[in-house]
Amino acid sequence: AFTRGMQTVTLIPGDGIGPEISTAVMKIFEAAKAPIRWEERNVTAIKGPGGRWMIPPEAKESMDKSKIGLKGPLKTPIAAGHPSMNLLLRKTFDLYANVRPCVSIEGYKTPYTDVDLVTIRENTEGEYSGIEHVIVDGVVQSIKLITEDASRRIAEYAFEYARNNQRSSVTAVHKANIMRMSDGLFLRKCREVAENFKDVKFTEMYLDTVCLNMVQDPTQFDVLVMPNLYGDILSDLCAGLIGGLGVTPSGNIGANGVAIFESVHGTAPDIAGMDLANPTALLLSAVMMLRHMGLHGHAKRIETACFDTIKSKKVLTKDLGGNSKCSEFTGEICRRVQDLE
Amino acid sequence: AFTRGMQTVTLIPGDGIGPEISTAVMKIFEAAKAPIRWEERNVTAIKGPGGRWMIPPEAKESMDKSKIGLKGPLKTPIAAGHPSMNLLLRKTFDLYANVRPCVSIEGYKTPYTDVDLVTIRENTEGEYSGIEHVIVDGVVQSIKLITEDASRRIAEYAFEYARNNQRSSVTAVHKANIMRMSDGLFLRKCREVAENFKDVKFTEMYLDTVCLNMVQDPTQFDVLVMPNLYGDILSDLCAGLIGGLGVTPSGNIGANGVAIFESVHGTAPDIAGMDLANPTALLLSAVMMLRHMGLHGHAKRIETACFDTIKSKKVLTKDLGGNSKCSEFTGEICRRVQDLE
Ligand SMILES: CC(C)[C@H](C(=O)O)[C@@H](O)C(=O)O
Ligand SMILES: CC(C)[C@H](C(=O)O)[C@@H](O)C(=O)O
Repeated sequence: AFTRGMQTVTLIPGDGIGPEISTAVMKIFEAAKAPIRWEERNVTAIKGPGGRWMIPPEAKESMDKSKIGLKGPLKTPIAAGHPSMNLLLRKTFDLYANVRPCVSIEGYKTPYTDVDLVTIRENTEGEYSGIEHVIVDGVVQSIKLITEDASRRIAEYAFEYARNNQRSSVTAVHKANIMRMSDGLFLRKCREVAENFKDVKFTEMYLDTVCLNMVQDPTQFDVLVMPNLYGDILSDLCAGLIGGLGVTPSGNIGANGVAIFESVHGTAPDIAGMDLANPTALLLSAVMMLRHMGLHGHAKRIETACFDTIKSKKVLTKDLGGNSKCSEFTGEICRRVQDLE
Repeated sequence: AFTRGMQTVTLIPGDGIGPEISTAVMKIFEAAKAPIRWEERNVTAIKGPGGRWMIPPEAKESMDKSKIGLKGPLKTPIAAGHPSMNLLLRKTFDLYANVRPCVSIEGYKTPYTDVDLVTIRENTEGEYSGIEHVIVDGVVQSIKLITEDASRRIAEYAFEYARNNQRSSVTAVHKANIMRMSDGLFLRKCREVAENFKDVKFTEMYLDTVCLNMVQDPTQFDVLVMPNLYGDILSDLCAGLIGGLGVTPSGNIGANGVAIFESVHGTAPDIAGMDLANPTALLLSAVMMLRHMGLHGHAKRIETACFDTIKSKKVLTKDLGGNSKCSEFTGEICRRVQDLE
């Protein structure tokens, strides 16, 4: 939906290089005249009533109002016993779909060209249930939890995503030959939902086979949908194909428009504060966010300015093969974004 | 151990292209004068007393005597309700270590060169426990089972493998940030065992990070050790880097020398019986077997003849980029193996 005036986004700059790359994104958004007002919040978990970990009320309230977050890397768990903030955020806002488009970037050479796929990961259950027990000394079990509702919901999200983004196929990734009941349930829901999306081709493939085919020819894949852990693995694998986490955007999507977009790389403490970081992953996540908010024109311009900067190879950060500072790379994108208006 | 005279190996030709590629291996072994007597057995599961699936007594007895098996691809499960024969064999003989060397093959072009790593997969428990429940309608759990004993055993196997094969490092692959208790136990055992192998470098890495790094630069890895499912995924991924399952050997190792070596590709029913199959994966698995039996000279000669045939590019099966029949490719390897004596 197009909106007049400014929209608020909750900004979680994060740790390490987080503040620098957040500043870079804000500068580029300003140059692009993107109608975004940033509300900066800290999300370091605190202990709430009853001793349960929760995100601070200021952050929660901001997100509840804005519905949209942009998040840099977090150093978590910050100490033993602390929860993973990434997991806590997904849980707090029921961000059930993790969406990672992996598209080859012109000018950034990897062994692969023409990669253009999206991994859609169930983000709330599966191997991430957190339920584990010691049965007897030396025998531990972890429980993988698969529900009909979450499986149907993520399958529907994947098919709707394919339809809305002019993508032609959805592949369900599973190991139902081994986990017949749990992955079997997931797969059954995918098949059922596929019935309602006859315009989208549906295929199924074992996770191991996907991995093998992926490194041999990633161009055969389009949209992939899968349980939590498989998504964790495959999304990183696919990021590797196009240049790594420094250039890969990510979105965590919930119901009713709620979403947090984030760069999934680390906090890179070794170069923090040195104006050397590469803001591309956070910027492309912010571009996903703009599209999610219906701001397609701004999204396109910023994305083009970013890709053109990489393609022209004149002003690049070290990890991209150049010698420029984060601020110079940012400045170059700002110039290009202004030229595009 | 070196042995005079013939040693018996239980041969499970398997389905589809299985018999053809088994014949190819036997011919090459004959040309190499490998001192192996083959005892052919069928392993299609039967229902034993009490209705439990088991492998036929003739196959079990043969393996119990020979201790060593060579296995082609099996079409399993052959019907709904039938067990996976691959899993049943691993279980019957407690083949706790699945070992897959992935080495770039000169002359067979892929996007990667100089890959030289080995995945060592815990083969008996983890996500393959087979324990699953419906909790309530629409809610299913699968149990991942990690034990101290199996974790220690596979870690010891990996470090011994590294030491005996002049490999310098072992990387434990895990998600102990998520499955803190189960993968935590696995990781702890790896750390403990590492203490006893100070000559081998030990590192730990998250599975998702391994996948990302693997597709970016596989040459950074050496020996990798991991729980069952992660091994299933990573071994296929790594096979993809060097050309796929058609050229990747595999061994399932148990205690007291018991082992089954196998090609892990499918039965390829579409080309079965047409003299078009590529026997390389089964042949290289048979080479692993010879080394396991202490027959290093024969192993080296057969391996060299196989790699030289691929490198010279004159006689190759279709999947390797040539136009030759399985029997022609086999004949070429036989000629070369005889020249090497
Ligand atoms: C940080 C970690 C908890 C997380 C995960 O395992 O999901 C990360 O790898 C990711 O993919 O977002
Ligand atoms: C056939 C199947 C049961 C098996 C597995 O999942 O382990 C296969 O993928 C393998 O790697 O041997």
